[in-house]
Amino acid sequence: MATQADITAMRRAIALAARGLGSTSPNPVVGCVVTDASGRPVGEGWHQRAGGPHAEVHALRAAGEQARGGTAYVTLEPCNHTGRTGPCAQALIEAGVARVVYAVGDPNPQATGGADTLRAAGIQVGQGLLEAEAETGNLAWLTSVRRGRPFVRWKYAATLDGRIAAADGTSRWISSADSRADVHRLRAEADAVVVGSGTARADDPHLAVRGVEGAVQPLRVVVDTEATAVKPGARVLDDSAPTLIAVAEDAETTLTDVVRLPRAERGLDVTALLDALHTRGVRSVLLEGGPTLAGAFLAAGAVDQVVGYLAPVLLGAGPAALADAGITTITDALRLDVTETVRIGPDIRITATPVVTTPKGA
Amino acid sequence: MATQADITAMRRAIALAARGLGSTSPNPVVGCVVTDASGRPVGEGWHQRAGGPHAEVHALRAAGEQARGGTAYVTLEPCNHTGRTGPCAQALIEAGVARVVYAVGDPNPQATGGADTLRAAGIQVGQGLLEAEAETGNLAWLTSVRRGRPFVRWKYAATLDGRIAAADGTSRWISSADSRADVHRLRAEADAVVVGSGTARADDPHLAVRGVEGAVQPLRVVVDTEATAVKPGARVLDDSAPTLIAVAEDAETTLTDVVRLPRAERGLDVTALLDALHTRGVRSVLLEGGPTLAGAFLAAGAVDQVVGYLAPVLLGAGPAALADAGITTITDALRLDVTETVRIGPDIRITATPVVTTPKGA
Repeated sequence: MATQADITAMRRAIALAARGLGSTSPNPVVGCVVTDASGRPVGEGWHQRAGGPHAEVHALRAAGEQARGGTAYVTLEPCNHTGRTGPCAQALIEAGVARVVYAVGDPNPQATGGADTLRAAGIQVGQGLLEAEAETGNLAWLTSVRRGRPFVRWKYAATLDGRIAAADGTSRWISSADSRADVHRLRAEADAVVVGSGTARADDPHLAVRGVEGAVQPLRVVVDTEATAVKPGARVLDDSAPTLIAVAEDAETTLTDVVRLPRAERGLDVTALLDALHTRGVRSVLLEGGPTLAGAFLAAGAVDQVVGYLAPVLLGAGPAALADAGITTITDALRLDVTETVRIGPDIRITATPVVTTPKGA
Repeated sequence: MATQADITAMRRAIALAARGLGSTSPNPVVGCVVTDASGRPVGEGWHQRAGGPHAEVHALRAAGEQARGGTAYVTLEPCNHTGRTGPCAQALIEAGVARVVYAVGDPNPQATGGADTLRAAGIQVGQGLLEAEAETGNLAWLTSVRRGRPFVRWKYAATLDGRIAAADGTSRWISSADSRADVHRLRAEADAVVVGSGTARADDPHLAVRGVEGAVQPLRVVVDTEATAVKPGARVLDDSAPTLIAVAEDAETTLTDVVRLPRAERGLDVTALLDALHTRGVRSVLLEGGPTLAGAFLAAGAVDQVVGYLAPVLLGAGPAALADAGITTITDALRLDVTETVRIGPDIRITATPVVTTPKGA
């Protein structure tokens, strides 16, 4: 049975883990709280960046000798393998903790086994405390491990009648400054931000993160099948963040930093694109549209979460937020579960998860 | 200063008033709580239907002699005129109450003056307690008095990408059974339900209220400019509720119960339609679309409240919830304030009010 003190410590560890969102890829976010033998918190830490110390190491360092006989609360099963840093299971054993409580088992076959190692060393091990909360906090990484491709969050901003621009193409600003700031937070959490050629052509977007302290800039990705939308001098090509242009295998371009991918019936093969990003260490993608690219991702079953910013605005004409998803009749509609509805300034942010997206074999 | 007991009594009166929604037209909804001299509630009542006793009369009857020296809490200023029933101000004086507290002043020039009459009789009168709550409860009637036309609530049900049907026209069901039941509650609150010829032709809708106990059926109105959409045998022509077909002055029809109205550039003149309904005692309209009729109402500045049921569904193709509102560029977009966001089963119901709709002279 978990005590209130256990719950408080694990909730703190989950909050610490969230500080790493967007900076730890290809690693998960992890938080850790260490208490002494009397249950008093004596150390905490979180995984800050790939190649840097794991959360447990930070927390054990802070605790020092006080960890002996105490408990370590970790959001993810302590790792058992030696990667760029030593295995955390070993560090916990050496620190002399009496008990380890972790929220989520490690699904990564290279890292799993930490719990067994701890038990073999005589440490009491508990699993599953606040598991759902910790899963949510690590949603992108867990999804990427389970599916073998980056987690994809599709973000759109539309009017109440579902439009992303007026009939004449104007769209500044449909959503509020609060919502736009919130999108920069989503970008900061993502390893890559992806747009299509339509958006690149219409908006010449910059796609870097602004206004989020300590943010690691995501990889900026433009899906530019024909290699005609991103021209030298485009804002996305400046040096504020890395950029990758995805073009068709047979497209002609003078740009560097391109990845050549097979064509699909329309545009590029979404699965090949996600594979290419995964290979580059991208574990989470913020798909920022436009409607055609979002339709291609949805048709490919490659959207794991939808975040819609609905502005209290009506237009009655203009392009819709989503197009060409391959759905022609209501029984084929893509159904979702709403997981959160929250006011962002004057707007409403709706977060939803497709009911069925798990591909075969995932 | 209002005491907690005052607030409790007025809040109860507001709740009682709401029981009359949809049944009192062309009168407002009103609730009343009477306490004795010691502050104990001894009678309550609400206005149930036009021509029936007012709320104060119901409450005073229940209180009997116990009202003497007590307080009457009324959501609306007690009336001063003799309509189908005697003036409530006089009834309160005769009952011997020492104090009358009302929330909202009566904006109706025929009925106002009740407070003055009470004061002249030596009764202590307080105004404004929970005024905003009571205003909200009487929104439709107050709007209709202030604007000289029925209050118009536009209801739509759409996907997250703003569509009301799939590409092939299928739409059963986008929104959930919970949302559809909620719409019947909105119908029951309204004096009239209005649809356009497109909806009449596509859906052959019934438009009557189902599943709401004690509901007064609203007037069913079809805007059928050319008199071609509603044919003999249409479900809307059955005898479960009254029906009115609005047609152009020059349209040919064999239907009875039609009202002939001037044409607008497209369809019928919205202002003339609302005038005709107002003349028939309609104080609140539930506009159930479709997109073209909603566009005409919005372009005419004749929508007072928007209620959108957003289903967590994506389609990527199909008709939008709103069309032809006369807006071509983003600076002309109709801006609203969200007043409520609530989950209805799996769906999200958003209630919003246009920021500027007050027509000149209102």
